[in-house]
Amino acid sequence: MKLLRVGPAGAERPVVLAPDGTARDLRPLTPDLDGGFLAGLDPAALDLAALPVTDLTGERIGPPVARPGKIVGIGLNYRDHAAEAGAAIPAEPVVFLKPVNTLVGPNDQVLVPRGSEKTDYEVELAVVIGRTGRYLDTPADAAAIIAGYAAVNDVTERAFQFDRGGQWDKGKSAETFTPLGPWLVTPDELGDPQALDLRLWVNGELRQDGTTAEMIFPVHETVRYLTHFMRLDPGDIVITGTPAGVTLGRPGTPFLRAGDKVALEVTRLGRQETTLGQA
Amino acid sequence: MKLLRVGPAGAERPVVLAPDGTARDLRPLTPDLDGGFLAGLDPAALDLAALPVTDLTGERIGPPVARPGKIVGIGLNYRDHAAEAGAAIPAEPVVFLKPVNTLVGPNDQVLVPRGSEKTDYEVELAVVIGRTGRYLDTPADAAAIIAGYAAVNDVTERAFQFDRGGQWDKGKSAETFTPLGPWLVTPDELGDPQALDLRLWVNGELRQDGTTAEMIFPVHETVRYLTHFMRLDPGDIVITGTPAGVTLGRPGTPFLRAGDKVALEVTRLGRQETTLGQA
Repeated sequence: MKLLRVGPAGAERPVVLAPDGTARDLRPLTPDLDGGFLAGLDPAALDLAALPVTDLTGERIGPPVARPGKIVGIGLNYRDHAAEAGAAIPAEPVVFLKPVNTLVGPNDQVLVPRGSEKTDYEVELAVVIGRTGRYLDTPADAAAIIAGYAAVNDVTERAFQFDRGGQWDKGKSAETFTPLGPWLVTPDELGDPQALDLRLWVNGELRQDGTTAEMIFPVHETVRYLTHFMRLDPGDIVITGTPAGVTLGRPGTPFLRAGDKVALEVTRLGRQETTLGQA
Repeated sequence: MKLLRVGPAGAERPVVLAPDGTARDLRPLTPDLDGGFLAGLDPAALDLAALPVTDLTGERIGPPVARPGKIVGIGLNYRDHAAEAGAAIPAEPVVFLKPVNTLVGPNDQVLVPRGSEKTDYEVELAVVIGRTGRYLDTPADAAAIIAGYAAVNDVTERAFQFDRGGQWDKGKSAETFTPLGPWLVTPDELGDPQALDLRLWVNGELRQDGTTAEMIFPVHETVRYLTHFMRLDPGDIVITGTPAGVTLGRPGTPFLRAGDKVALEVTRLGRQETTLGQA
């Protein structure tokens, strides 16, 4: 099952894409796709035929989760990316946070921050939490709290991240820095989260071409690990790291500028297309 | 004017403490003290006499802001604390983030995380944002977006922060790690935010005794700076760093354990009293 939010920013409505190809309005069941709805979601129990068909023609797509409590990032979770970043392979997951007001829809404009010289892209697999998680014991326990998956671009300003006095969050926090979607895909439809291809293009040139099979810390283990350092709540988003190919790892390649076109795809999670603007 | 939230966790009601000493129920004006209410708040225009008197006897006090979008931390913002932490004086503010589900009331139990050996305290001045801030030019512009101030304990697990593979957020994120309150005090009542004493006691022993006069980056400058790296929204919380005296800076002193009593006070922002438990 694919869940999404369509409409103007801040006034999106919830929609489900049914297996028969129709889009169905979810508003008879919930005003929005938020943590409360995800906490009670049982994809097998949803009577899609009872929901009205809705037309998405020409509609903007928003991020597929409303009002998440937090966005947790995992750094250096692919060996090839750690190598290109000049970093050691981490012994346990590297954790950072992004403000939730960085979230935008998958095709919304991403803004290069004022004063930025090193705005960079990172295609990733995002996990959306469906049930509260605290001190989970096993990766299977962690799998049971996941509501679904989405494609995400963890946009990052490298100079802000590394050269401005400590802690990566400073380079991860600018407005529009987390395009998410187009869909939230439930685990039953996604299949194995460690068998997904991730690709990203800048102005048509393939820059990242990886697979979640190469993650150092797999998704379920990462979520289990996080619950020992923080409580995960329904609606929370975990972005699980990027494979090689970011601008940081390509000396001589220009960083992103207003007018650049970034596209990304993740297997079964859809495609994003963004044109950069200037803040 | 002092604003607060009282009642059971998750079901608090908004209250204002009037200059005549009465507590007044704010529910005729707003269901809660959230960003939306703070964005429209003009303390001088509130007709307190029109609000019903309410009795707070025996009531729990919650954190004075409902559903903030983010908690932004400033690290090493006092010279004496940077020295005790063995860190250089920062050239510009060090920024980290805390999940919003770490927030608890000022006297709620703080839980030592499982596996923790170095749970530590940090008394700080918290700033609550009242209007959206983006790329502000001057400290005076930043002052204009501040809704108020509160006392906060930025509870931190030092081993998680420093010894577990990078980025401080890992040691700042455990449940109950951000007791806030008791009150949100509006800027007109607080006066100069750079002339406040901060004190913290563990089991009756004075451990921190500082003043915001010693901040490296003053409050208004810090808020201005942050808006160049992220958008600040109404309800967002900025915690502005701690003076010397944390356990980290006292070799041989035990870190916090279940049963320990922590108290803190900040001038005109009230007192917190917490007994630690075990997660």
